[in-house]
Amino acid sequence: MSGANGYSILFEPVRIGPVTARNRFYQVPHCNGLGHLRPQAEAAMRAMKAEGGWAVVSTQETEIHPTSDLSPYAENRIWDERDLPALRLMTEGVHEKGALAAIQLAHNGHHAQNHLTRAPVLAPSDMSLETPYPKQARAMDKSDIREFRKWHRDAALRARDAGFDIIYVYAGHHMTLPQHFLLPQFNDRSDEYGGSLENRARLMRELLEETKEAVGDTCAVALRFAVDEMMGGDGMQAHEEGRAVVEMLSELPDLWDVNVADWSNDSQTTRFQPQDGFQTDYIKFVKQVTSKPVVAVGRLNSPDLMVSMVRKRIVDFIGAARPSIADPFLPKKIEEGRIDEIRECIGCNICVSSDTLGIPIRCTQNPTMGEEWRRKWHPEIIAPKGREEAALVVGAGPAGLECAMQLARRGYEVTLAEASPELGGRVPREASLLGLSAWKRVSDHRVYDLQQRGNVQMFTDSRLSASDVVELGIPNVFVATGSHWRRDGRGRTAKRGVEIAAGMTVLTPDDIMDGTVPPQGPVLIYDDDQGYIGGVLAEQLAEAGHEVIFATPAAVVSPFTELTLEQSRVQRSLIERGVRIVPLHRLARVGAEHGELSCVYSDKPQRVDCASVLMVTERQRNTSLFEDLRQLPDAPLRTLELIGDAANPGLIADAVYAGHMAARNFERDPAEVAQDIYRREIISLETAPGQGRGARYNTRPEFEHVGNN
Amino acid sequence: MSGANGYSILFEPVRIGPVTARNRFYQVPHCNGLGHLRPQAEAAMRAMKAEGGWAVVSTQETEIHPTSDLSPYAENRIWDERDLPALRLMTEGVHEKGALAAIQLAHNGHHAQNHLTRAPVLAPSDMSLETPYPKQARAMDKSDIREFRKWHRDAALRARDAGFDIIYVYAGHHMTLPQHFLLPQFNDRSDEYGGSLENRARLMRELLEETKEAVGDTCAVALRFAVDEMMGGDGMQAHEEGRAVVEMLSELPDLWDVNVADWSNDSQTTRFQPQDGFQTDYIKFVKQVTSKPVVAVGRLNSPDLMVSMVRKRIVDFIGAARPSIADPFLPKKIEEGRIDEIRECIGCNICVSSDTLGIPIRCTQNPTMGEEWRRKWHPEIIAPKGREEAALVVGAGPAGLECAMQLARRGYEVTLAEASPELGGRVPREASLLGLSAWKRVSDHRVYDLQQRGNVQMFTDSRLSASDVVELGIPNVFVATGSHWRRDGRGRTAKRGVEIAAGMTVLTPDDIMDGTVPPQGPVLIYDDDQGYIGGVLAEQLAEAGHEVIFATPAAVVSPFTELTLEQSRVQRSLIERGVRIVPLHRLARVGAEHGELSCVYSDKPQRVDCASVLMVTERQRNTSLFEDLRQLPDAPLRTLELIGDAANPGLIADAVYAGHMAARNFERDPAEVAQDIYRREIISLETAPGQGRGARYNTRPEFEHVGNN
Repeated sequence: MSGANGYSILFEPVRIGPVTARNRFYQVPHCNGLGHLRPQAEAAMRAMKAEGGWAVVSTQETEIHPTSDLSPYAENRIWDERDLPALRLMTEGVHEKGALAAIQLAHNGHHAQNHLTRAPVLAPSDMSLETPYPKQARAMDKSDIREFRKWHRDAALRARDAGFDIIYVYAGHHMTLPQHFLLPQFNDRSDEYGGSLENRARLMRELLEETKEAVGDTCAVALRFAVDEMMGGDGMQAHEEGRAVVEMLSELPDLWDVNVADWSNDSQTTRFQPQDGFQTDYIKFVKQVTSKPVVAVGRLNSPDLMVSMVRKRIVDFIGAARPSIADPFLPKKIEEGRIDEIRECIGCNICVSSDTLGIPIRCTQNPTMGEEWRRKWHPEIIAPKGREEAALVVGAGPAGLECAMQLARRGYEVTLAEASPELGGRVPREASLLGLSAWKRVSDHRVYDLQQRGNVQMFTDSRLSASDVVELGIPNVFVATGSHWRRDGRGRTAKRGVEIAAGMTVLTPDDIMDGTVPPQGPVLIYDDDQGYIGGVLAEQLAEAGHEVIFATPAAVVSPFTELTLEQSRVQRSLIERGVRIVPLHRLARVGAEHGELSCVYSDKPQRVDCASVLMVTERQRNTSLFEDLRQLPDAPLRTLELIGDAANPGLIADAVYAGHMAARNFERDPAEVAQDIYRREIISLETAPGQGRGARYNTRPEFEHVGNN
Repeated sequence: MSGANGYSILFEPVRIGPVTARNRFYQVPHCNGLGHLRPQAEAAMRAMKAEGGWAVVSTQETEIHPTSDLSPYAENRIWDERDLPALRLMTEGVHEKGALAAIQLAHNGHHAQNHLTRAPVLAPSDMSLETPYPKQARAMDKSDIREFRKWHRDAALRARDAGFDIIYVYAGHHMTLPQHFLLPQFNDRSDEYGGSLENRARLMRELLEETKEAVGDTCAVALRFAVDEMMGGDGMQAHEEGRAVVEMLSELPDLWDVNVADWSNDSQTTRFQPQDGFQTDYIKFVKQVTSKPVVAVGRLNSPDLMVSMVRKRIVDFIGAARPSIADPFLPKKIEEGRIDEIRECIGCNICVSSDTLGIPIRCTQNPTMGEEWRRKWHPEIIAPKGREEAALVVGAGPAGLECAMQLARRGYEVTLAEASPELGGRVPREASLLGLSAWKRVSDHRVYDLQQRGNVQMFTDSRLSASDVVELGIPNVFVATGSHWRRDGRGRTAKRGVEIAAGMTVLTPDDIMDGTVPPQGPVLIYDDDQGYIGGVLAEQLAEAGHEVIFATPAAVVSPFTELTLEQSRVQRSLIERGVRIVPLHRLARVGAEHGELSCVYSDKPQRVDCASVLMVTERQRNTSLFEDLRQLPDAPLRTLELIGDAANPGLIADAVYAGHMAARNFERDPAEVAQDIYRREIISLETAPGQGRGARYNTRPEFEHVGNN
């Protein structure tokens, strides 16, 4: 089948040192907020990728030693033997589905904080921690380096014991010691590990050699290497030292996994980097320098782009993190020619935000992501319908679309009614804003899917009243009527709203998305939401030539976007567009020709003259249909469920998830459904050998007050 | 014995409903970053308090249901039966030492984010989450309230099964639903749960009644209630509705645990609230209104203050969180008349910062806190010395003092040599700064202890060279020579330092602590450290009349102090003192008469004219003695260890910890020592009944691409 559709080149096996990948699809290491805190969930999620056709499935970064303790974040761990059973769950699951398992060994140097272990923080030179915490790393001396190399070698041996086929040396994202040693910004040593490029690369070379020596007979040794810091001449550049490193070590690793640093550059969002394959210019030299296979990333969703990158000898493997999250079955779908079924990554970095928060991964496009173990959700399989025949979904936003699509997949006759002229709800509306156009893939994917199905009827311009619903005679109703932005200023800092003088034009994000143009004169945006949309609107209005003042009680613009690695770009963009930013201020009241702000610390007032105020504060749920239906006297409905933003305003990812859950749980035993939310991984109360449970102070008391006489 | 020393009133038993506390020392619920992620550590820590004489030992807040999911923070959990074994570890440990065990049941409403469970967030009214995350809580309807009451009742029953003696209804810190319902700022309902005080208090009353009905025959039911929001007329006040609530419910709970909201007001640091017992004015009315026992807090360290509070009928119990952390044996020491051995809480909130970071608790004064399980450290017991007889500690800062004290407790002949005229190192120096005077307790406690001992010799004004050390002939040497602040601007944002023109006066925090007065004219403080000291120095210099400009790459002043609940107060204080704050700027260079700043987003330069620059950037380790000793040719030393800031600059808490660890580990088997750092609690791979391990998709595949034809 793979030969027939023009993508067969993607399904050629490729040798990596002593192991062979069944095809060219390679899930590079990526964080997921599961890790050592949720090993069963992690194993199930990785196994799902293997089932979906990926030839190589990698862990996230894996702490090799207590001096690289990333707590409270949940990465993987391979400190000692006790971590192996959890890792074996993953390798066994991945092998069972025919893929190779890779592990990314990591020592995070001063990127770690060692908050749990309280161990010394290590670095090439004395320096502050990367995070703004008043603790410093110490320069490693020769014995530290020797010890570190031993830790790495021991970890490689343990990794082999745990069943991994590919073992990484990790020098990327500004996150690990071999890269810290390599880069002059972190390394000012004067010994043989500092100075010349050869010296700075010495540690990386030693790790590669020692890993190969330890496990190279049975495992491939990969090097993940950032060829460019994207700091121009202030950092390593692909055409200078980046290339020199690849030349120097070209045949040493069995595989080159290359990207750009730091993480925010490697995992750019579509908002700031709309082009898929955006890393190609940086990494394309690598294959010219080495005979070893090369894998690279850059939101590679498109099979045609993939084929072209292989044909042009840019890469041997199609690397993916985010596209494999949005669609774990991406390879299978390409292989089977089901291109139009691919759920393309929208590049929103909600996946990244989970890791940054230390919580399980989620995905806007793929609501099953992270739920493979807990809810037993399979992205491609869903239970067929039970006794019920038909369902009505009211509202075709992200929750309604997903709910309708999954109900249709289950075999129900689905009626989807949308009040507005367009399907998609908030999705196409937000996607119409500057930078967010890729988000439209969320509704496009679902609308297209629904359009193909014989058991779905979709209506636009169809606002339903409760009596309309009753007249339709469909006894199972899912209400996904969404929410709208409040105009009264009510929100986190003004729980009763804000006094607004007559005469001022007060707008909401909905107005802008409806196409309303603010009146002539300055627009004061008040962002009490502190999510992403306030910053997007500021960018858009400034781009359109408006004078924009952006006020927020937060210390920075759109603090939520720190979680998606975008915050620097957001605020830089506003500054470049001339937006005046007033952080750390609440909106106290709105006059006829001004807004009155108030310092969050001192309450000191500040007057901002403006012609309009754009309130980005809070959303109000649209629940009137639901309330009307709930109060119907004769209870003609067997199912009535409120879902998505109408139930709990949240991210688009939350709405899709809610729609998916409602469809999955329809006709399930309610008692079973109620249990799902309790499923969790908990700490073992078993104690390791020699680590007795309770207090075991094998010391005698010292009665120190005796000394007081 | 307790009768003899005037504190006997503190050791009277007190009845609480159906149970009796052996004395008046009551460890109120407090967070600790252990919780459900580190249950063995939690149990050992709580048991240690019981051993130290506390009559009641409480858990931290305990999530009663998946809709109150505080992930990634590690509080306690009692969602279902699976959580009980971990909680039983705690109750058994506490009972074994003769104390009562209390549990604080909590539903956190919109203070929770439900990031793990992805459950709906609940609140009295529709509103944003408390944290700035773009997700909203929904108003609970009647059935939600009924369900919530059932969850609470079921949790109380489970808590009784787990062995708890006292079960809390928790309405404090702005953190839980019964308080959210009570306060008009969160509740604008128009039904019987909103409006009048009686209505707003209805839920609290129902929870109390239902908890008593469920478990009141064997367990006491406590109410933790914040009597005042400390917002003046904008919030609940102790003399108005706060009192009215106590009057309304006066005899319903078996115990009143009263405090002020929010957490930053309840747990004020000595920096901003130096007075111990600072909550008395707010809570003293309570005992006049109820016949039930009352417990209150406010950093109650002083036995005389405790006695006076009981005698004056302000409280029945001496409540403590932080003082019980600094000294778990506080009650025992008072009972035995060992008042001068008490390690008084310094009110620095390092304990709080652990919880805020989601990492295990630590304490500046008590290095054993949080290490009872992992390292088997007992705060009052330490192993006696082995074969070695003598040790030299060089440097009498926090690491050196603690190391010397613990070595002396172990029975070694200890020589402590300090180069400066004063003992304490950075401790008395920092304690001399505005607001930090209570920190001096760290050195006072240790110096006093050392002074009482016959096996300790202390020398000030004694800077030792390597040959001095060799001449002393003591073969075991601990080098605790500390660190000093860099003058060259090197730090997080300038890893090679900053160009500085001749003519500018460049100061460091050490200069200010040495008494240097900046020259006439504006002082530019550049805070690249972003800890606490930059803000302290700004406050102090402004207070002394200097014109201060405070520049930092951070978005706010002293972001680290968010972890200690102080940040708002810090920045407000600087604003009130007229400090000009320039956030989000790096120091690019220093001219002869100005500093040149650069926007962290846009690199846009900003010139600040000044007469001096105070560099708060990074510290340099003082290691020359250590390096000299290390290079001695004949290796005359059997032990040479670098500890504290000289090894890894950090917090005072880190230095004390390092000194303690060095003393504990001296003469231990190195292999055993090396193992300590690996001890950790890990996730069970056992699966709960009905929660199969791997994927169990008991559904048939749906071949959805069939629909594409």
